[in-house]
Amino acid sequence: MTEDKALVLLSGGQDSTTCLFWARKEFREVHAITFDYMQRHRTKELAAADRIAQIAGVEHKILWIPTIKEIGDSALVGEGSVSEKREGSNLPSSFVPGRNIIFLTFAAMWAYKLKINSLVIGASQTDYSGYPDCRQDFIYVMNKALWEGMGNRDLEIHTPLMNLAKWQEVLLAKILFGCWEALAYSHTCYEGEYPPCGKCPACILRAKGFEEAGEVDPLLMRKE
Amino acid sequence: MTEDKALVLLSGGQDSTTCLFWARKEFREVHAITFDYMQRHRTKELAAADRIAQIAGVEHKILWIPTIKEIGDSALVGEGSVSEKREGSNLPSSFVPGRNIIFLTFAAMWAYKLKINSLVIGASQTDYSGYPDCRQDFIYVMNKALWEGMGNRDLEIHTPLMNLAKWQEVLLAKILFGCWEALAYSHTCYEGEYPPCGKCPACILRAKGFEEAGEVDPLLMRKE
Repeated sequence: MTEDKALVLLSGGQDSTTCLFWARKEFREVHAITFDYMQRHRTKELAAADRIAQIAGVEHKILWIPTIKEIGDSALVGEGSVSEKREGSNLPSSFVPGRNIIFLTFAAMWAYKLKINSLVIGASQTDYSGYPDCRQDFIYVMNKALWEGMGNRDLEIHTPLMNLAKWQEVLLAKILFGCWEALAYSHTCYEGEYPPCGKCPACILRAKGFEEAGEVDPLLMRKE
Repeated sequence: MTEDKALVLLSGGQDSTTCLFWARKEFREVHAITFDYMQRHRTKELAAADRIAQIAGVEHKILWIPTIKEIGDSALVGEGSVSEKREGSNLPSSFVPGRNIIFLTFAAMWAYKLKINSLVIGASQTDYSGYPDCRQDFIYVMNKALWEGMGNRDLEIHTPLMNLAKWQEVLLAKILFGCWEALAYSHTCYEGEYPPCGKCPACILRAKGFEEAGEVDPLLMRKE
């Protein structure tokens, strides 16, 4: 296995876009993978991811995972508002139980095929959004599960945003070559609107980060 | 969540069939899930699993996972002999890296939907076949990853066969009501043949177990 290759899980949102450009700085060769799981705004998300991968000049794989929708139990792959809590729990309605386990495992399988040892994911436990599968504790045991299950103890999951506040992530994006330009094409709004709706949890969190960093979101300055 | 319901991962082979009847004895309500991942002998495996679920009288879900074949890297979902070692490694060519992680996660997602807390899988580290994702160490961290990632600390993975030798598994099957009859319809041979080829690793392991237990495999006595 080669040490200087990385595979970035790229959704086309702000976090994974920042991770992609972080990886381009840290690794000699970078690949990206995006999941088509029949999510609500799949057309917009896949188009955003593809454009961002092009801007970064990295190889990009789109992997189709129809099983999540068949089995899934979340507003993000079904009907209903994505801004509410899940019925009978404190988890957000947009939480898809098991999703990041599936994503990281398929990414690890793809990485195995490409002889890549480093996965990069934009999970963050700061500004905690209520997703249990974005916490350090989860990433830690998930990495171990991948070691034990795939017989590959060299695999490492990198989470450069894990302990950054949103405003710190914005400042990180500013210093990563090409990242700011790419962020203009990133997709964040749960409602799939452009300009962003400004009301869903994702839009509110993104706006807060740029505001606290004292920057204007390049997404809002987009010409087309 | 209810404590007395279980979901069994049923491939239609000897191990998972024995687990299904073990679960029927241990839990009040039992469900089964089988994965259609475009494996070589999918038609035979799915038919076997369906018949066995019928004999057991349990609800049976067949879940389609085409992604494994797209990304996979194994003789079990591709071409080539399944009796050899993987090129450049000590792992069997039939090993699909990541497969049991994917299976357990989709099973956990399905269990989440059905409000089931117990998963049952026929993994065994005795008569060790070289699969890293059948060992206790893997099951242990995988269970933790599911806890952390899905926010459900009640989930438990049961592995009744983990430390049984094959001949002990045969004797267990003898005392589980209905299991012996069902084993006549279980599918084990990697080459998909009936009567079994007797030459592949799966056939050899199965025959050895029945021989050491002093029993005749009910599969060989099947009338149709």
